Amino acid sequence: MNAVQPSGLNINLGDDCSRKAYNWAKQTFGNRAGKAGMACVKVDGGFANLLDFNGVKIGISSDGIGTKIEVAERTGIYHTLGFDLMAMIVDDLAANGIEPTTLSNILDVDFLDPDIIDDLMRGLHDAANECGVAVSGGEIAELGTRMNGYGPRMHFNWCATGIGILHPNLKKPIDGSAVQVGDAVMAFRSRGFRSNGFSLLRTIMREQFGAEWHTVKYDDAQTWGEVLLTPSRIFAPMICRLLSEGVGIKGIAHITGGGIASNFERVTKVNTLEAALDHLFPPLEMMQKVMELGQVTAETAYRYWNMGNGMLFVMTPSEADAVIRLSAECGFNARRVGTIIPKKI
Amino acid sequence: MNAVQPSGLNINLGDDCSRKAYNWAKQTFGNRAGKAGMACVKVDGGFANLLDFNGVKIGISSDGIGTKIEVAERTGIYHTLGFDLMAMIVDDLAANGIEPTTLSNILDVDFLDPDIIDDLMRGLHDAANECGVAVSGGEIAELGTRMNGYGPRMHFNWCATGIGILHPNLKKPIDGSAVQVGDAVMAFRSRGFRSNGFSLLRTIMREQFGAEWHTVKYDDAQTWGEVLLTPSRIFAPMICRLLSEGVGIKGIAHITGGGIASNFERVTKVNTLEAALDHLFPPLEMMQKVMELGQVTAETAYRYWNMGNGMLFVMTPSEADAVIRLSAECGFNARRVGTIIPKKI
Repeated sequence: MNAVQPSGLNINLGDDCSRKAYNWAKQTFGNRAGKAGMACVKVDGGFANLLDFNGVKIGISSDGIGTKIEVAERTGIYHTLGFDLMAMIVDDLAANGIEPTTLSNILDVDFLDPDIIDDLMRGLHDAANECGVAVSGGEIAELGTRMNGYGPRMHFNWCATGIGILHPNLKKPIDGSAVQVGDAVMAFRSRGFRSNGFSLLRTIMREQFGAEWHTVKYDDAQTWGEVLLTPSRIFAPMICRLLSEGVGIKGIAHITGGGIASNFERVTKVNTLEAALDHLFPPLEMMQKVMELGQVTAETAYRYWNMGNGMLFVMTPSEADAVIRLSAECGFNARRVGTIIPKKI
Repeated sequence: MNAVQPSGLNINLGDDCSRKAYNWAKQTFGNRAGKAGMACVKVDGGFANLLDFNGVKIGISSDGIGTKIEVAERTGIYHTLGFDLMAMIVDDLAANGIEPTTLSNILDVDFLDPDIIDDLMRGLHDAANECGVAVSGGEIAELGTRMNGYGPRMHFNWCATGIGILHPNLKKPIDGSAVQVGDAVMAFRSRGFRSNGFSLLRTIMREQFGAEWHTVKYDDAQTWGEVLLTPSRIFAPMICRLLSEGVGIKGIAHITGGGIASNFERVTKVNTLEAALDHLFPPLEMMQKVMELGQVTAETAYRYWNMGNGMLFVMTPSEADAVIRLSAECGFNARRVGTIIPKKI
């Protein structure tokens, strides 16, 4: 049975479609067997996106920023989306222990607006410089009436593929296989909604504030539109810094669609473990307000949004204090949020 | 001044937007200087998409299949588009001497239709197997009313990024720098419109045959919809085969948007040369019919469509016969279409 969610998205149907896509994709892995670009496939396909090129291990990952774009169209603020696009991709790579190096982006538009495109690409440039990635190029496609959005200006969708190299201090990807009972679970504080759960967010906003919800004051300084547009923090450089310092990170979860539970489960399930997450960062103020406005249960909120915890990672507890200190020096707010425990049957 | 084209697309504005995007992108290349993922940049940025990973040279390229998708929506035939998507990307890679290895795809949909998605991914699988590429993965994004298209079923856009490795017989990318007067220009026959110039095509079809143009008979066997949907031939494996056989290919042009003139100019301009293309494959029958129907001048037709010549490449004339023979053995129709000449001032 398919479960239709409060956002209107159908998560089981989505899983079904992803499974169909993966089932076809995996029948192509053999095309590179024993050749450059061979997939380092695990039984469950987890590393299909890590490739071996004559001994050099290259990771590849694709994503987009979904309907957060509508918030940019509403507010007329375009230069922050590049941080969201970069974060979605490089943080997925970093979550496997891949140091992101390169991003190639595709911008689909209804018609061309050079000013908006300049703002978007400037933002992507700023994001790339923040995380040490090169934007190798990309494609801008005019699709006319196939694209829709808010207001009269250019409408667009934006996605990208990133590649990177297995971090030099790692022999294999970070996959959760070394995680054990008693390990510390750490988190980096996020600063906003990143690029997930915007269908639900927009539904709540519209119901509360009407069609022009983005213009409604959030506080004295900002509108709701501006607050929801808060650009994603990019965690990849901090993860890579910790790996370079020799921190033994055993598992990483980038908290995207599905929330903490579904993303972090990929780390704990490898060794059939669980986590007691008793000290998570509290939800950001904007998230608490949205929950109250939309009467969203904690269960739903934690399934759609990062709730202030943008990335979780697992390591030996003895290193936790040093990691928190180094992160703070680099401008990242890290804390220990829990402990790995045996799986309750 | 911007030139609005018969297709309704504005080519100068497109160039302007691409230039803006590239100007921001090139300011990020330095982020990888001296590190893994360093761009092998030429002065004009031609090789920004060739990267050095500890001595291993990796190419990266992104593209989509634009509004050809509407023809699939009209005909209800979905499994051929994978060949178009694959061709757009791996043939761009091959045109630089990159052996394509891996493709990561992004499918944006309004709502999920598992049957259509299964057809699309089966086609991508078939295309991947035809050219020896692995589909490493991808992303399916639900974007609701942001996506539009023909008819009541799922609407979508489909794009991808491919990577590959510099062909082992090459020391540097194929860039036209070895092209000289007297070299032979060769072409591979295409079998249809590939993924370019569909805005103009659809305009002509609508004007001639009305809103339901795709149902109009092209001949006894096929409708116009089916004919325009003809999947792209993928040339990359044949190019790689020729390189593996030691053929000294000096320049390659994948004929996409802009047609033969603008795509092949990138090959000849390096050494300030020209080509006398006096023996091109004649336009495919479907292209001749469209030209007659829409009263399209040859100048316009050759700017928007490949006109039967899907890929051009330059080599020493003495090898031409052997290349034609080997191509035929592999099922590709190749011929000598012209000669490199001094540039007329």
